[in-house]
Amino acid sequence: MKVTILGGAGFLGRKLAAHLAGHGRLGENQVSGLITFDFVDSPAPLDADFPVRRLQGDIAALPDEAIPHDTDVVFHLAAVVSAQAEADYDLGMRVNLHGAEAVINACRRIASPGRQPPRVVFTSSIATFGGGQDAKLEDDARQVPANSYGAEKAAAELLLADASRRGFLDAVSLRLPTIVVRPGRPNRAASSFLSAIIREPLLGLETELPVADAFAAWVASPRRAVDWLLHAAVMDTESMGIDRSVNLPGISTTVAHMLQALDEVRPGASALIRHTPDPEIAAIVESWPAAFEAMRARTLGFAAHEPLVDVVRAFVEDDLEATRAERGLPRQ
Amino acid sequence: MKVTILGGAGFLGRKLAAHLAGHGRLGENQVSGLITFDFVDSPAPLDADFPVRRLQGDIAALPDEAIPHDTDVVFHLAAVVSAQAEADYDLGMRVNLHGAEAVINACRRIASPGRQPPRVVFTSSIATFGGGQDAKLEDDARQVPANSYGAEKAAAELLLADASRRGFLDAVSLRLPTIVVRPGRPNRAASSFLSAIIREPLLGLETELPVADAFAAWVASPRRAVDWLLHAAVMDTESMGIDRSVNLPGISTTVAHMLQALDEVRPGASALIRHTPDPEIAAIVESWPAAFEAMRARTLGFAAHEPLVDVVRAFVEDDLEATRAERGLPRQ
Repeated sequence: MKVTILGGAGFLGRKLAAHLAGHGRLGENQVSGLITFDFVDSPAPLDADFPVRRLQGDIAALPDEAIPHDTDVVFHLAAVVSAQAEADYDLGMRVNLHGAEAVINACRRIASPGRQPPRVVFTSSIATFGGGQDAKLEDDARQVPANSYGAEKAAAELLLADASRRGFLDAVSLRLPTIVVRPGRPNRAASSFLSAIIREPLLGLETELPVADAFAAWVASPRRAVDWLLHAAVMDTESMGIDRSVNLPGISTTVAHMLQALDEVRPGASALIRHTPDPEIAAIVESWPAAFEAMRARTLGFAAHEPLVDVVRAFVEDDLEATRAERGLPRQ
Repeated sequence: MKVTILGGAGFLGRKLAAHLAGHGRLGENQVSGLITFDFVDSPAPLDADFPVRRLQGDIAALPDEAIPHDTDVVFHLAAVVSAQAEADYDLGMRVNLHGAEAVINACRRIASPGRQPPRVVFTSSIATFGGGQDAKLEDDARQVPANSYGAEKAAAELLLADASRRGFLDAVSLRLPTIVVRPGRPNRAASSFLSAIIREPLLGLETELPVADAFAAWVASPRRAVDWLLHAAVMDTESMGIDRSVNLPGISTTVAHMLQALDEVRPGASALIRHTPDPEIAAIVESWPAAFEAMRARTLGFAAHEPLVDVVRAFVEDDLEATRAERGLPRQ
């Protein structure tokens, strides 16, 4: 099975690549080759039993070699995050919308009658929905995005579903919850603080909280996100019909509950939180719905989520030391 | 008030231009200039009290002069219709999606702090919905398009709503029902037969019906469509919030009822219908919902629809002779 990861240098892309390298399989199938593509170079070489090729470039001008004719699965994770797409309209459109069009055209180019079209697993987002703090969205909720990132992702979902119907590719668009805890540094996602309030105190660092403790969010762990991506790559899409997007079974939590889970894993750590209200950040993240009733995802076989305290523990196990090393911080 | 009509040579564009020329006003405002833009040249000169400029070109490469800096209202009607967008994917994407992007960029270019952004009235479609014959869709129904035309229009709606939120323009996207009775000739819209079964018999011509008599459709007349376009150009958009799309109060009818209305206006005319099932056409049109509960449109001031028999009579009054002349058919 030949796999391409677009956005392969991002944190989910790296975790996914590391998983494929470590297991050598995708579902029941042996991985026989991996291509990673990103705007920046992937940071670490992979120790894999199959050939790995790293390409660098612009997703909207995707080179043919990123999705060669024998590609079976494309993970399309390349994105400009929410606050950045809000700040730079052209860049957001280019990466988040025209990037998806480039993926469609690449798959269409290699489509041939006797062959299954490539599976494309696309990371969409709950930012495609409005609704806000009080919403609890059913699977048939309408997408009324309140930011450019969400509008671009929702438009890309439409194009990928249509391309699936036409047989250019076989898409599954995952509307990912906000992923916590992200490793590395704060980034330009408006939701960056939701990871920072766990990660930074565990690194012994102060961090700013731009919203109130009562702020509610729909979140999922990196472990669960990788599981969902892997499932989407091999699941039967027949039962999805023309509707290729799925809301995932994340968990609805609040900042207060997250800090409680943090203190459970590292007592007193939440003392490093500084309350610094930021109306611009709040305006973006408060438009995102804080709860979903994700029934369809369960029917389609997506795994349920683990409790919040396990999410904090998983970050400590999987990412704390690497993040510390990457950022040149002393061991505590 | 300076007005641009994109797709000005199409049948709605021509009716709209003729209305503006005839009345000289748009709502309470005097029209002081009109630009029409189309891929083909507009067929007839307009007798107007204001300057009219006709431009010809590709909507996806919209020239600056089509939307000059003093533009107040843009009617964006340029489209590749459903069956054609299904047959030619690249053309559909270019006109229906990239065309909308070109309109956004043109409006953004002329946006300036002290000035209202231009109102953009966009013709979206009920083809953005799935649901089919049995659906009766509420205003919060989700768009799951079953054809490329619908996917492209839905994606364009998302981009226009986002551009409105950002202040590049001030969009109202009208999800038009199938318009009957269209003048002229059959076209490549999958729904072309819904006009042909009224128009062709009134011209004394046989016509093919590709679906069963029980086929249900959500329709609106050209008169009502023009009224809605005019209302959308001057209405207050404040109450729309970030959701700039509206389902309109068309009427739900069946082929059988349409033929009954035809016979009421011209007894025996329905004898010219030939039942010729066409599974490809049926597959497209049967995916479109046949009924809506369009409450929001009424709240926003869009006029209710007249009865079906009036639609047939209006075609006879407004368009029958011109269509006969255009097609070189003898008077009956």
